[in-house]
Amino acid sequence: MTGQLSLNAFIYPAGHHEAAWRHPSTTPERIYDVEYYQQIARTAEAGKLDAIFFADSPSLRTEVAHNAAGRLEPITLLTAVAVATERIGLIATASTTYSEPYNLARLFGSLDHISRGRAGWNIVTTGDPGAAANFGLDAHPVHAERYARASEFVDAAVALWDSWEDDAVVLDREAGVYADRTRIHEIGHHGRHLRVRGPFNQPRPPQGHPVLVQAGASNDGRAFAARYAEAIFTAHQRLADAQAFAADVRDRAARLGRRPEHVRILPGISPFIAGTESAARALQQEFDELTVPAYGLAQLAALTGTEVGEVEDLDLDGPVPARLFADAGDVTDNGRSRLQVVAGIVERERPTVRRLLRRLAGARGHRVVAGTPEQIADTITEWFTAGAADGFNVMPPWYPGGLEVFVEAVVPILQQRGLFRTEYTGTTLRDHLGLPRPVNTLVPSRHRTGA
Amino acid sequence: MTGQLSLNAFIYPAGHHEAAWRHPSTTPERIYDVEYYQQIARTAEAGKLDAIFFADSPSLRTEVAHNAAGRLEPITLLTAVAVATERIGLIATASTTYSEPYNLARLFGSLDHISRGRAGWNIVTTGDPGAAANFGLDAHPVHAERYARASEFVDAAVALWDSWEDDAVVLDREAGVYADRTRIHEIGHHGRHLRVRGPFNQPRPPQGHPVLVQAGASNDGRAFAARYAEAIFTAHQRLADAQAFAADVRDRAARLGRRPEHVRILPGISPFIAGTESAARALQQEFDELTVPAYGLAQLAALTGTEVGEVEDLDLDGPVPARLFADAGDVTDNGRSRLQVVAGIVERERPTVRRLLRRLAGARGHRVVAGTPEQIADTITEWFTAGAADGFNVMPPWYPGGLEVFVEAVVPILQQRGLFRTEYTGTTLRDHLGLPRPVNTLVPSRHRTGA
Repeated sequence: MTGQLSLNAFIYPAGHHEAAWRHPSTTPERIYDVEYYQQIARTAEAGKLDAIFFADSPSLRTEVAHNAAGRLEPITLLTAVAVATERIGLIATASTTYSEPYNLARLFGSLDHISRGRAGWNIVTTGDPGAAANFGLDAHPVHAERYARASEFVDAAVALWDSWEDDAVVLDREAGVYADRTRIHEIGHHGRHLRVRGPFNQPRPPQGHPVLVQAGASNDGRAFAARYAEAIFTAHQRLADAQAFAADVRDRAARLGRRPEHVRILPGISPFIAGTESAARALQQEFDELTVPAYGLAQLAALTGTEVGEVEDLDLDGPVPARLFADAGDVTDNGRSRLQVVAGIVERERPTVRRLLRRLAGARGHRVVAGTPEQIADTITEWFTAGAADGFNVMPPWYPGGLEVFVEAVVPILQQRGLFRTEYTGTTLRDHLGLPRPVNTLVPSRHRTGA
Repeated sequence: MTGQLSLNAFIYPAGHHEAAWRHPSTTPERIYDVEYYQQIARTAEAGKLDAIFFADSPSLRTEVAHNAAGRLEPITLLTAVAVATERIGLIATASTTYSEPYNLARLFGSLDHISRGRAGWNIVTTGDPGAAANFGLDAHPVHAERYARASEFVDAAVALWDSWEDDAVVLDREAGVYADRTRIHEIGHHGRHLRVRGPFNQPRPPQGHPVLVQAGASNDGRAFAARYAEAIFTAHQRLADAQAFAADVRDRAARLGRRPEHVRILPGISPFIAGTESAARALQQEFDELTVPAYGLAQLAALTGTEVGEVEDLDLDGPVPARLFADAGDVTDNGRSRLQVVAGIVERERPTVRRLLRRLAGARGHRVVAGTPEQIADTITEWFTAGAADGFNVMPPWYPGGLEVFVEAVVPILQQRGLFRTEYTGTTLRDHLGLPRPVNTLVPSRHRTGA
């Protein structure tokens, strides 16, 4: 599969466009219905996509007054999807800031067992003040501290998954020996932020450990990605920026002794697809006209780390005040990466507030494209062949139709070009992404020698 | 359904008998296979049982060398079961000691949404030193502190589930209003152990909140149960003890202004079932002979809070030393309730160590019975009609066969006697248990008046 694209479906309740829930083609009354997500996952699987993906935050983040923003917890939701599908990978976001490695490793380990090796974990830190208040804190920990904890958290989680050697369960009924205790290890993680003794209470997951995914473009974020990430979700508006990012991350990974092809770089792309380019643009326009300015302003405030009160009276037809980007607060790393993208838009295009809100409405700073299936396939091909992307995190503006048209019209073109699989060749998410099953770091040398 | 029995299937990987995994009728190679549990749940549903139930601990508790003791995380597992069943209730144990209300409320809220109202939460505190070491602590918090935190934890979780009024989602596409923000509330929980602001990030669960279950017979445990529990799992060997316990808990609940019938008391029962009583006893004997003394001794040490080193050299054919029970450590409340039961056995029966280990092998201190289907139905009927139980937490000695024979042979007798449903009459776990959907405590009076 080397040289093949990866394609994920990033699932957002009614779609990534902020007004999708108002559009007649969506069914926002189904966004708490598990069958809705099972159906979407089956569409992604029919398209032979690598994975579906859910974002997450332990708080009510977006302004639910004007968007279908409540959501089910993603790991349980993916578990329900796992048993209704066969091959599609299942990636959930989960924060290292407000959970414990033992608890989270159990959830993802179970998802990997239940799905027979299809789990992925999008590792994030949480910098949302609303989340801090849900966990007994007055303010969220600062950026660098969050990354230090995240690093320890992943080390501990991987060690827990490794704490049972692959052949720890011997199941010798005759002798009365279920597991070989010499192959189940304490992990003894003693860090500055976390102490975890282990061992884990379930066998090593089918994939060794779930695929580790990361989304963040700050310096801390890139350093973290270079060390841990097997796939990176990223936000870029322009090919050159994406190329520079990809080159930097691959270089950092190589300097840490990793093979750059084991870090799959997947920018977001939100495609409006129609039979002609002008029909696609008209469709986008239709969605844009359903936006609610109060919602867009609240999103802009959250993105820039400003108070809603500071943006709610902005003249929609006036220029975007530079101060919003000059003094951005301590946003999340994922937010930070999108913030850079949006600051770039403001600098280059000098939009009015209304125009900027429209730009953000599509996919919160991710790249929105409108065109024919051929045109969408062309831009995907261009970025892929130019080394800017190993694939894409596809963000349909509306669900389920926006994914259906991508799968029915764009995927076949990519397949005809030999860039994308026509059938799954493996059963695990690692197989789909071309990633190796990780070596178990806790196996003592005497067991390696004996193997 | 008043006056009807409740029956749960308490699922243990290969069965509740500690040697079940060695018996030829079990399939311990399937205990990490989700389809194994889906099949068991369908059997329970075919028997019209109220619920299936999983125990849990955030540590590797039992001696995995001699028992099939690794396990998947129960909430994810129940989610996978939820979408493969229609009616059966889904109860998972989860600790309040090493998790956060916001995280756990999301998992159970999602399970309740995904299952369309079939979730139950068995609330426990964790007093296992092995668990403490997995969460950065040198020792686990003392019993009273754990209960104080548990109480705050449940208050906060219920408030989170209540933070969206039932009609908060208005979904007015025309006006661009998704939710009525005046019907989504911060909870502002400010306690000694926990601070949680809210609001929650998902709508109120279908059941209002998952059914609250509790298992613990200490004074703290009974006080907690009287206040919160809608169902209680308990361990009793003798009818009189069970009657006294039930009377005490019902009285405590009534004194708090609750209706005693809204606290369903469900002792454990582990039945060996065969065509004749002697065949049932022979079957039990068959399992007992597969026990591994080293495992039983480790369990005895854990139950009594002693070090394994203090029990491993005991003479199996000598008496049980009184010191084991005189000075029991700070075990979990669930463990404490079973400890009392076991201390009673030792006092009454003066067993040898080997005999005590055999008594514990069946169901860790819960009541083990062997007999014909008629005899099993008789003892269930007797306890039910004597007010000692509102039903039972059935603990099949082996899975899946031990549940199958219960459903095929015992349930029909209870149905013929008019004690147990022949068809589900509702769709939620609350319906099955005869429990009301709780009033939302966070709805302001102006909204009640308006309703």
